[in-house]
Amino acid sequence: MADIVLSPRLRPSPFVDGVETAGPRAYTVYNHMRLPLIYESLEADCAHLKTRVQVWDVAAERQVQLAGPDALRLLQWTTPRDLSKVRPGVCAYIPVCDETGGLLNDPVALCLAPDRWWLSLADSDILLWAKGLALGAGLDVAVDEPDVSPLAVQGPMAEDLVARLFGDGVRDIRPFHFRRLPFAGAAHVVARTGWSKQSGFEIFVEGSEHGPGLWDALMDRGQDLGVRPGAPNAIERVEAGLLSYGNDITREHTPYQAGMARFCHPDRVDCLGRETLLHEANHGPPRQIRCLTVAGDALAPPQRVWPVTAGDAPAGRVASAVWSPEFGTNIAVGMIERAHWQPGARLSVETPDGPRDAVVREKFFR
Amino acid sequence: MADIVLSPRLRPSPFVDGVETAGPRAYTVYNHMRLPLIYESLEADCAHLKTRVQVWDVAAERQVQLAGPDALRLLQWTTPRDLSKVRPGVCAYIPVCDETGGLLNDPVALCLAPDRWWLSLADSDILLWAKGLALGAGLDVAVDEPDVSPLAVQGPMAEDLVARLFGDGVRDIRPFHFRRLPFAGAAHVVARTGWSKQSGFEIFVEGSEHGPGLWDALMDRGQDLGVRPGAPNAIERVEAGLLSYGNDITREHTPYQAGMARFCHPDRVDCLGRETLLHEANHGPPRQIRCLTVAGDALAPPQRVWPVTAGDAPAGRVASAVWSPEFGTNIAVGMIERAHWQPGARLSVETPDGPRDAVVREKFFR
Repeated sequence: MADIVLSPRLRPSPFVDGVETAGPRAYTVYNHMRLPLIYESLEADCAHLKTRVQVWDVAAERQVQLAGPDALRLLQWTTPRDLSKVRPGVCAYIPVCDETGGLLNDPVALCLAPDRWWLSLADSDILLWAKGLALGAGLDVAVDEPDVSPLAVQGPMAEDLVARLFGDGVRDIRPFHFRRLPFAGAAHVVARTGWSKQSGFEIFVEGSEHGPGLWDALMDRGQDLGVRPGAPNAIERVEAGLLSYGNDITREHTPYQAGMARFCHPDRVDCLGRETLLHEANHGPPRQIRCLTVAGDALAPPQRVWPVTAGDAPAGRVASAVWSPEFGTNIAVGMIERAHWQPGARLSVETPDGPRDAVVREKFFR
Repeated sequence: MADIVLSPRLRPSPFVDGVETAGPRAYTVYNHMRLPLIYESLEADCAHLKTRVQVWDVAAERQVQLAGPDALRLLQWTTPRDLSKVRPGVCAYIPVCDETGGLLNDPVALCLAPDRWWLSLADSDILLWAKGLALGAGLDVAVDEPDVSPLAVQGPMAEDLVARLFGDGVRDIRPFHFRRLPFAGAAHVVARTGWSKQSGFEIFVEGSEHGPGLWDALMDRGQDLGVRPGAPNAIERVEAGLLSYGNDITREHTPYQAGMARFCHPDRVDCLGRETLLHEANHGPPRQIRCLTVAGDALAPPQRVWPVTAGDAPAGRVASAVWSPEFGTNIAVGMIERAHWQPGARLSVETPDGPRDAVVREKFFR
């Protein structure tokens, strides 16, 4: 491993003091921010996440706000998901596409009002994309990055902890819905979302000055629940088949290839990349995300993309792979060519230590 | 220090094998790529850079290509620098601005042909900005990221080394000019540019497959010159006053605040943010980059922005500061308010270890 040089360009979050006191072992960088990834170890962090409750500094999921009469028009232009029935209080997972149908991001869009949306982003400057489209087309919409930073509370004890701060009403929030709730003299969006398949919430902290108090209150009020700082966990999310933009899916891939067909309606929405998307809707994509199991002892996660082959033929790529202690196997997220994606297909993954046998599964583990 | 988690999302460069063999101690992330920053130590790397020659993997300076009849129109829309007289073979350092005059990037624009330009980028997704503007306005221009990766050769021996590979003609390349020259069956743009004030070149490697051979050839042919892998060096560049986008200058700052007045012609160019830029051209900016010396023993470079004060009054910010062994003082890049920016002004910088006395200098050290 090598060090990371932390400079102001890798922006600290409002929760930086709590994070640095806890002392993460490893970071990545995401949307020009530092994103803590490992506290004790991937395995220990994962085991804790599955049994207790963790507080994650995911401020790096930057928000882009679209506000004004043309907000929905702008958003609908760049996603094939039909947003016409999305109401305030709903979080809509949306593919964001360019004119080729290639994925630029896969944010959660929060509908605050019919003319005001937040995009809670994966790792790319959708601020510049949305501003560019709006300026170019002369749309009547303000695009900016508000001072809003998500803090995730994830794990089986998450609901109890969040209820202690925001009230028992949070228990009634349905998945991919949110309410704006008061805490300590401010109000924040509390959404039942998060990048794990454990139960949990994301609190969208409005105003950086409220970050440290909320962090401390969660740590304080959650002591008996075993709360500790945590992070999006590579093991848990690969077991669950949650995709990482920039790793598993990129600008080279369409939403259909990413397995997002249920979030695509190119038949009734006139969005960028519509022609490509209609074609893939009608004929199926040429490759698609698949869960693979990979033979042998525990793999270290890929630092570069690993090619996948079927005999001598190229069969796809793997960008995420982990050893799962719970399931006792290596699990990989593959982008697999159509000829080789049927469950049971036997493939080979080129790891740095040589080829490994792999098998396509019907679905992910969770 | 904490580790960095290297994943495929932090894209490896074509030179990754050479870099990893050398084993950098620390990385940052830049344009979704890993950027090696420290090999031995900041001080040792700096001393070597000033006496010998280094090869830098700066593939993270991603290229965005604008090609087509409206390429220049698109580029001129988003920069106040008058490009009408920039000819093929010239590298033009340009501020890229949004509609508020805020800096989105400060790339070097390489004019390959009147209708084909590369932007060699600082850290932001100008690909999305340029594509958004072009799609929104319906411009006839193709915007993409070509397979071109800069490799910098910097230091007093750089010219000798580059001449050994590309011929003595490189000695005639003037600063901020380039030629396309053959090597090992391919041709690459060789420019007299680079993020140091030592002499040097950047080789824009066309085709990732040519990266490893060029890296190896430079290492091999430069042995007697003392060549080694290196990186943009925080000490050398602060001594020289080279600005880091995202650190010293951000979207909150204009080109005039960044000290780029000589690259701004809002009087004769109809660009985004023109009104703000004209105002600052006529009335002067409210704050501007200044060199500061900071008292006391060696400072560790800032991990967060340090506030600057004059008595009780806010006077600016510092995002870059280093101990300079050559000049025997701490040097900082300050964004200083107009009331306090005159040479000799005595200020205070809030470091994590407490306030330090600082003085505004007339200019940087190199």
